[in-house]
Amino acid sequence: MQTRKLNLLMDFYELTMANAYLMEGKHHDIAVFDVFFRSVPDKGGYAIFAGLEQVIDYIESLSFSKDELDYLKGRNLFDQSFIDYLATFKFACDVYAMAEGTPVFPKEPILVVKGPIIQCQLIETMILLTLNHQSLIATKTARIVRAAQGRAVLEFGARRAHGYDAAVFGARAAYISGAIGSSNTYADYAYQIPAIGTMAHSFVQSYQSEYDAFKAYARIYPDDCVLLVDTYDSLKSGLPNAIRIQKEVLGPIGKTLKGIRLDSGDLTYLSKRAREMLDHAGLEKTTITVSNSLDEFLIRDLIHQGARIDAFGVGERLVTARSEAVFGGVFKLAAITEDGVMKPKIKVSDNVSKTTLPGFKQVYRFYDQKNKAVADVITLKDEMIDPAKPYRLFDPDFPWKSKTITDFTVRPMLLDIYKEGILLYQRPSLEAIRAYAALEIKTLWDEVLRLESPHLYYVDLSEKLWTLKEQLLNEVRP
Amino acid sequence: MQTRKLNLLMDFYELTMANAYLMEGKHHDIAVFDVFFRSVPDKGGYAIFAGLEQVIDYIESLSFSKDELDYLKGRNLFDQSFIDYLATFKFACDVYAMAEGTPVFPKEPILVVKGPIIQCQLIETMILLTLNHQSLIATKTARIVRAAQGRAVLEFGARRAHGYDAAVFGARAAYISGAIGSSNTYADYAYQIPAIGTMAHSFVQSYQSEYDAFKAYARIYPDDCVLLVDTYDSLKSGLPNAIRIQKEVLGPIGKTLKGIRLDSGDLTYLSKRAREMLDHAGLEKTTITVSNSLDEFLIRDLIHQGARIDAFGVGERLVTARSEAVFGGVFKLAAITEDGVMKPKIKVSDNVSKTTLPGFKQVYRFYDQKNKAVADVITLKDEMIDPAKPYRLFDPDFPWKSKTITDFTVRPMLLDIYKEGILLYQRPSLEAIRAYAALEIKTLWDEVLRLESPHLYYVDLSEKLWTLKEQLLNEVRP
Repeated sequence: MQTRKLNLLMDFYELTMANAYLMEGKHHDIAVFDVFFRSVPDKGGYAIFAGLEQVIDYIESLSFSKDELDYLKGRNLFDQSFIDYLATFKFACDVYAMAEGTPVFPKEPILVVKGPIIQCQLIETMILLTLNHQSLIATKTARIVRAAQGRAVLEFGARRAHGYDAAVFGARAAYISGAIGSSNTYADYAYQIPAIGTMAHSFVQSYQSEYDAFKAYARIYPDDCVLLVDTYDSLKSGLPNAIRIQKEVLGPIGKTLKGIRLDSGDLTYLSKRAREMLDHAGLEKTTITVSNSLDEFLIRDLIHQGARIDAFGVGERLVTARSEAVFGGVFKLAAITEDGVMKPKIKVSDNVSKTTLPGFKQVYRFYDQKNKAVADVITLKDEMIDPAKPYRLFDPDFPWKSKTITDFTVRPMLLDIYKEGILLYQRPSLEAIRAYAALEIKTLWDEVLRLESPHLYYVDLSEKLWTLKEQLLNEVRP
Repeated sequence: MQTRKLNLLMDFYELTMANAYLMEGKHHDIAVFDVFFRSVPDKGGYAIFAGLEQVIDYIESLSFSKDELDYLKGRNLFDQSFIDYLATFKFACDVYAMAEGTPVFPKEPILVVKGPIIQCQLIETMILLTLNHQSLIATKTARIVRAAQGRAVLEFGARRAHGYDAAVFGARAAYISGAIGSSNTYADYAYQIPAIGTMAHSFVQSYQSEYDAFKAYARIYPDDCVLLVDTYDSLKSGLPNAIRIQKEVLGPIGKTLKGIRLDSGDLTYLSKRAREMLDHAGLEKTTITVSNSLDEFLIRDLIHQGARIDAFGVGERLVTARSEAVFGGVFKLAAITEDGVMKPKIKVSDNVSKTTLPGFKQVYRFYDQKNKAVADVITLKDEMIDPAKPYRLFDPDFPWKSKTITDFTVRPMLLDIYKEGILLYQRPSLEAIRAYAALEIKTLWDEVLRLESPHLYYVDLSEKLWTLKEQLLNEVRP
């Protein structure tokens, strides 16, 4: 694979701040930054964390070329010492993150960077950009896959994606959340995401007749023959021609028509009639794929209405997450050394919900005896939770609302990715991430997975973290 | 600049179809494909065409490497003759397109490819992906820039973009439509789009006090000092500290505070109070920039309410075109040679508005004596329009609604980009595209530019094209 040179893909203020830290001698100050998000897109109950692999790819290749340094010099804003610093840049931070494919929830840290503040700042934009994009698409796809209730979901959005990376990494994120393949050939070439596709309307139109087009296709691809039947009239022309292909072309050579695709019209009605016609012709195993501006709600309704569909090709509404095209991950300072001592920091906002959580933190997920996730608890990094002892969960906003749990298992969610710039994490394969995501989603209650008005999964604070937060709030209150 | 290897970024069906054309001996058939869109995002009155430069970059670098060919072989679907064809691929099509920055309208061809059908098909996905993305962002930005009524619009969205290309080419498209710069440093490095930015909240928080942070920044950047004033309290802390910086740090060395930025709270109220405080301190030239989930409607309302804002930093809602994240450009067959003769093709849909326009076409734009655009007329490619003669415009759906115009000027909109694979087009600089877009937008009536319920700009058909369409419709009608 080609290495991308995206070193300067950062908000310009990262550079002005970094230069200032260096000139002020503050660049060795150790800071802790949390990545978290404040709400789940589409008012869903959970998000799927994705993009960590590309964050690592970025960090591994981060260095500044002469061209890039010359550009920065040409801006006449930066001190030569800063240019020199970049010329010999060596990543030295710790990074902690959830595993890709993990269901994640608002307000909890999903990635933490701890290290020289100058470096934290320089990598902010790329971390957010990468995680926001892939988590957005993975979250949207998880909704669509759930709506499809076990039927196949294919990612068909390349032509409407927001640029080339959105097409490729969108396919990757969709695959993590359970899409079975993508129309995007590059995603297969580069990431082994099965590329799928047969024909467009233009193929059918380029022949004198629909039958001629089908015949040509079936002869060339007898084992993989999926015919697009709606170029002229699905029921009056496309289906009869497809069935004739079975009789006249595929049947005689012992093959079976693999499938048909509907791309317009009322997909409930057409799929039911198509199923009848195919079954009547003895083509019970021929699958029906549909496409045409699908999303989780349309898919849910089609299934509810008894549509006979085996696979959904989902395009623009998946790859752009059209219903909510923004995943709002932020990168906020949680602690910084002052005179060599790490001090937790809080940012208070007029909008109470935007207040940040101070300190260097860990997230624990609690499971009940049936392996269902009960709650996440955000703690300070050095806290341990003993599953042999009862644990009191309480609502951080209404602490009198509490519940003591016993018989639970618990696991720390933020894994060690980098230690002082050294990559410790054994990167899983994409297949492993996908399998993990499927298992993790199963640990959530159906109530949390609901498409609309889901149950709000509990994200609580440990008593220590809650107390620290209150203490810092009291300090800043006038 | 790095050359991207995106040769396999195509829907897989492009390859299955291309292989079939080759095996059927149809690959030399000459086809005409139109790119057009059916509706303007956000129910706007016009779109801005963007992305042509990257389409050309893609075509210029299109060739298939051994790795890519090995991947295709490994799929066990393609004939060796097709692999060989790709190995020696040489682009041989004609391409016609509007100039980047042109206001464009539904149903008219904005790019036309004419050439061997096998090649047209192979480049479909990348053409659509590139044009759909950049036209989406350029169109959204044009709305935002218009709402800002001459005030500066800055593109601040990198961290929420859909991947790296969306951040970079989003900045490019925004710049074409009048944004004055971007937060994205890479966009400046690679495309000379001015990169802008000063400090984040973390910078202020990393110091013992807001004043200390401002002081450090002002000393390092005395000529470019824009202070973010809302980390603690904009009016009680940020503004007073900014004014103190002028008195104690900048004033004594003969400098003036360049600006302040507000990133939260009620921007109308805060900007008015901030303006008063700055003016009262003699800082009449210090600018006020605001940010925080802005879009064209918020900007319009802020201005309407008398907010005192000089520049708008617009992030996620611009770079993702959040209100409508899909630009629906399609690539449809308009003609193909049958037995050596070019035959126009039409695709009829149950949905009448989805019927395509047949034939190899041109688009003419008519202007009145004040250089305002009156209508576009889609014609067959060889039609000429004589501005010395009256011209009858008529509604293609209601042809009895007609109007004869005189005293007009007219120009063909689809330019020659490629002829038989040779690039003829002299690519304009990004600055030239940006200047052209600004002038072109001025040729539209205010009624067409309105954010909501705009006047529907006329896109008509020539009598010849209308007649051809009716004739083909009659042929397919049962």
